Amino acid sequence: MTTPSRRELANAVRFLAIDAVEAAKSGHPGMPMGMADIAEVLWNDFLSHNPSNPKWFNRDRFVLSNGHGSMLLYALLHLTGYDLPLDQLKRFRQLHSKTAGHPESSETPGVETTTGPLGQGIANAVGMALAEKVLAARFNRPGYNIVDHHTWAFLGDGCLMEGVSHEVCSLAGTLGLGKLIAFWDDNKISIDGNTDGWFTDDTGQRFEAYGWQVIRNVDGHDPEEIAQAIRTAKAETERPTLICCRTVIGFGAPTKAGKESTHGAPLGKDEVAGTREALGWPHGPFEIPESLYAGWRAGHGEAQEAKWNELFTEYGRQFPEQASELLRRLRASLPADFADRALAYADKLQAEGPVVASRKASQMALETFGPLLPELIGGSADLAHSNLTHWKGSKDVLSGAVDANYIHYGVREFGMSAIANGLALHGGFIPYDATFLVFSDYARNAVRMSALIPAAAIHVYTHDSIGLGEDGPTHQPVEHLASLRYIPNNRVWRPCDAVESAISWKAAIEHRAGPSCLVFSRQNLAHQMRTSQQVRDIERGGYVLLEAEGGKPELILIATGSEVDLAMQAARSLSEEGRKVRVVSMPCSNVFDQQPIEWREAVLPSWCRARVAVEAAVTDYWRKYVGLDGEVIGIDRFGASAPAEHLYKEFGITAEAVTAAGRRVLGGKA
Amino acid sequence: MTTPSRRELANAVRFLAIDAVEAAKSGHPGMPMGMADIAEVLWNDFLSHNPSNPKWFNRDRFVLSNGHGSMLLYALLHLTGYDLPLDQLKRFRQLHSKTAGHPESSETPGVETTTGPLGQGIANAVGMALAEKVLAARFNRPGYNIVDHHTWAFLGDGCLMEGVSHEVCSLAGTLGLGKLIAFWDDNKISIDGNTDGWFTDDTGQRFEAYGWQVIRNVDGHDPEEIAQAIRTAKAETERPTLICCRTVIGFGAPTKAGKESTHGAPLGKDEVAGTREALGWPHGPFEIPESLYAGWRAGHGEAQEAKWNELFTEYGRQFPEQASELLRRLRASLPADFADRALAYADKLQAEGPVVASRKASQMALETFGPLLPELIGGSADLAHSNLTHWKGSKDVLSGAVDANYIHYGVREFGMSAIANGLALHGGFIPYDATFLVFSDYARNAVRMSALIPAAAIHVYTHDSIGLGEDGPTHQPVEHLASLRYIPNNRVWRPCDAVESAISWKAAIEHRAGPSCLVFSRQNLAHQMRTSQQVRDIERGGYVLLEAEGGKPELILIATGSEVDLAMQAARSLSEEGRKVRVVSMPCSNVFDQQPIEWREAVLPSWCRARVAVEAAVTDYWRKYVGLDGEVIGIDRFGASAPAEHLYKEFGITAEAVTAAGRRVLGGKA
Repeated sequence: MTTPSRRELANAVRFLAIDAVEAAKSGHPGMPMGMADIAEVLWNDFLSHNPSNPKWFNRDRFVLSNGHGSMLLYALLHLTGYDLPLDQLKRFRQLHSKTAGHPESSETPGVETTTGPLGQGIANAVGMALAEKVLAARFNRPGYNIVDHHTWAFLGDGCLMEGVSHEVCSLAGTLGLGKLIAFWDDNKISIDGNTDGWFTDDTGQRFEAYGWQVIRNVDGHDPEEIAQAIRTAKAETERPTLICCRTVIGFGAPTKAGKESTHGAPLGKDEVAGTREALGWPHGPFEIPESLYAGWRAGHGEAQEAKWNELFTEYGRQFPEQASELLRRLRASLPADFADRALAYADKLQAEGPVVASRKASQMALETFGPLLPELIGGSADLAHSNLTHWKGSKDVLSGAVDANYIHYGVREFGMSAIANGLALHGGFIPYDATFLVFSDYARNAVRMSALIPAAAIHVYTHDSIGLGEDGPTHQPVEHLASLRYIPNNRVWRPCDAVESAISWKAAIEHRAGPSCLVFSRQNLAHQMRTSQQVRDIERGGYVLLEAEGGKPELILIATGSEVDLAMQAARSLSEEGRKVRVVSMPCSNVFDQQPIEWREAVLPSWCRARVAVEAAVTDYWRKYVGLDGEVIGIDRFGASAPAEHLYKEFGITAEAVTAAGRRVLGGKA
Repeated sequence: MTTPSRRELANAVRFLAIDAVEAAKSGHPGMPMGMADIAEVLWNDFLSHNPSNPKWFNRDRFVLSNGHGSMLLYALLHLTGYDLPLDQLKRFRQLHSKTAGHPESSETPGVETTTGPLGQGIANAVGMALAEKVLAARFNRPGYNIVDHHTWAFLGDGCLMEGVSHEVCSLAGTLGLGKLIAFWDDNKISIDGNTDGWFTDDTGQRFEAYGWQVIRNVDGHDPEEIAQAIRTAKAETERPTLICCRTVIGFGAPTKAGKESTHGAPLGKDEVAGTREALGWPHGPFEIPESLYAGWRAGHGEAQEAKWNELFTEYGRQFPEQASELLRRLRASLPADFADRALAYADKLQAEGPVVASRKASQMALETFGPLLPELIGGSADLAHSNLTHWKGSKDVLSGAVDANYIHYGVREFGMSAIANGLALHGGFIPYDATFLVFSDYARNAVRMSALIPAAAIHVYTHDSIGLGEDGPTHQPVEHLASLRYIPNNRVWRPCDAVESAISWKAAIEHRAGPSCLVFSRQNLAHQMRTSQQVRDIERGGYVLLEAEGGKPELILIATGSEVDLAMQAARSLSEEGRKVRVVSMPCSNVFDQQPIEWREAVLPSWCRARVAVEAAVTDYWRKYVGLDGEVIGIDRFGASAPAEHLYKEFGITAEAVTAAGRRVLGGKA
């Protein structure tokens, strides 16, 4: 068996990509063909990973930010021995295969994050590199660099045009993420054609402005230049590195190389044949000679992990407490007593009954839970004093403190949220981030990605309605609650007082299968009375806060957050009129909808159709609970700039309005 | 009356801001105090505008991208003689005043765009500068520079951290917008404090990388340096200019100047008194001496406009056709025969019955309407070949062609959409932009701003469901239709065939009071039969596409877009079973909801509660039409990567499923 050349090794990637795209009749061959040589050098000579254990903790993270080139990654995973057999590559882009059109970390072993939405992969990578740095500061000891890996990212022109790349690369420079190394696939082609007409940045200069090391003019088809650039990148430990690789998209295609036609469509039979000839690839579709497999599997993955395991074992002997704490965090298991202590805190609040804004209640929850959870790592997009995400134990990650846990994200909502996804994916952290609810818009696709990946990031959104007052309609969310609730696998909590706020935080911290959005008020909220059982019912997402006399309501009022107290007031008025009114507090409709039918029927019995919902947000969302016969008190227009109490009156979101709606709904029945 | 010094003129701005924020007990004094000197020089010595006619077409556009400093703008408008009396400043941030917390162009004369959501003001400014450039190329003639103005923008660190600033400033460099001049308020302070901890870019270097002229190190409190910088900026005609102004936030405040405490809260009584002393301002709250008014109103606004009017009159004599065409475009009135021709086209399509993807039908509509509408200016975020937004008459704005009308936005969805808002605000254009529906997420707050400003931008979104197939869940919208429909004042059209696509385009073009989102399929759609009246009913947003036998349905099926044909198939099956089924096509629920009750009742009569809705998207949105007794066929999870037809089957969005739901709903009644 002759030793294959580097080019032959790279061509294995090229042809797996070409053949899979042909078979699927769709896909993106151009990027894998262009970046194959870079990938070959990186994966064969530098990447520290173990294909037989994709979840080995100290592995290097590799992120394909230009995710449309998914076949590059699948080819690499297959060739290096991950559990991704050839049969899966043949089923590229087919139902129930492990080879989706864009890489999905939940579907495919070795895929670190789900990419495709451009710019977010590099953002996830920034989060992973930050996770490594903070975790290393916390757990490493002299002679025991047990947390010690690089984060690598491939990115294309598309990623670099996206605004989120600015946000996260700027921050990566400020944070000095020296173990983050990105490769720019500088092929001068995007979907519309030659980028001269729309992308003329001096990207190297731009990244130098961010404080990165920039290695220019690397021939992305010359293994020696690539290797040298990587060595230079690794030698720099204070700054992230951008390696600018000149490449030819669709490298090897006789007539289409260098053209946008290779980007997002199969090459076609003739061009594929021509590419086989041009690159001297005599093998049939999906045929990889054993010598090439041998070349690709010459890595030392298991040895690398074994060596680390030894080091960690010794670390465990020297620092048993640290080792078990790290393992606990990596398992994502909470301290054994967390749930009890959190509930005890909620019970205490229930007894004390503080009247505070829920954003303040959120901070109180952080003050209580933060000391229990060193894995909490938070931050805000330059609104720490407003979001109240800072607590007494918060320490800036820039400080280098061993227990650093706070990130000043700057005004970068999208980047922040995508970085939080990276922190969650890395392991060892429960990330939370924060901005005003209205600016969840800026981060919206990153929240969607939290749910899709899934990444258990906690997104804190304060100033949750017209209740924010004077800042006006640009800052007043109206449609956001409904829109966030509609993201599949997302959970939106909007608590009505300090007790529900504490339970919402508890639920978010405990929920590791996806993101939670915690939505808090700017203004003070009344305290609601509850039994101990009711305190526990909050976690059901919706529960009976006030039972109708006799337990058989003729009218049900449903509310969330700041409007729960309006419903309570209305219920009292209507009760005085002799009506039997139940109030349902619904802090999280997503969780409520997942309860067994028995619970849902107990809270919202089908036989009671006289229902009124109230929430300072778009009304139509609530039709799912009140139907066509109920009423919804809310706001279906933009807000206005004025003190909050004037706005509630102006827009008719008042206890009187709820009372009147209740009477109408009852009257309609009578 | 002594001539006031420049500093005194600027102090008038400072104290109006200080006093208004004190009176409102909320607001942002720091920025106006910091930027007052820059504003004074710009507005008194350079800005071409006419306070007595804020809508004078050839005025310079001034955009306050750091919109939280709204009092700076209100003070400038007041002092220079716009219709914004002192009484309005005293009612800063109060209900029904013209002085909202953030500037709103729909509320206040002289405010060019609504700002506050950071980074979008500079994006709007890029759109305005682009509008000027394209319009100038189209209408100017030698000796007749009738379109000839600058666009000025103020921006802060927050704007520069936001990703959207990268997208639009990069593109502004590529487009060579030489008449765009931005002032960076480099005060080293954002809400969380000194920006050293989160914003360490070399911003000048960054903008040079974009191809801007950068003027560094201007003392933002030295009128001569400011004026010199502006002269240098104006002298450069090929590149946009960034003037980097070192300023002190809260300039003049004795203990708070230079601190984040001046950013977003009243200074407080003592600090205000101290500032009066420090700046030598002996006047009471809201007191502006006549000499200062005289200094501020020494501008030549009316003379400037008069001079332009003369030029335009002469232009009208020389080029009568051009002049009347420009005036038509500025009035935003369509060619007189547009509506008839558009309807004739729809009738023709109805007769011909093409079976095409609605994205293709959209392109056909562009081919038909484009030649009638030189004000159409389009583009796509690097998806021209997929969105099909390019038509035969498309000419790249970079080409310098007199009839240029196409923008290669690159992969910049957010920037694109905010630039489109700027194009719409400038006047003379009907902008459309495009991306995949799922990436409306990236642009989401700009779409919201289209609705809030309002700016009549047309947002084209193709690949509108799991029907996009193999690209997988990262690219498959699920929650987006509902989320976009919930934005107040937004209109979302999702046509079911080529005829509805043409009418959707017609409606969007004619609707000037806000944005329209046009949502198109990747895959082919069947043609539906319609009478001539039904073709006209499409504009109602929802109409009876198939009437039940006898005109009295026992079941109503409601559908949009690609699912209308599923409803039609189901209706035929159920009719064969003897059921009386009506099919309602609902291409735009927003417009349907605005129809008179008679129309809505005629389409969805209250007496018929047996209803099934079908849409390949989240189901709960449709509860507003089907209530608790109806059913919805849709998808409440993320999609998957596979050919579209497999996905529809996998997720149960089929004619059979609609038929079964119809039977269930009818059975429930029986």
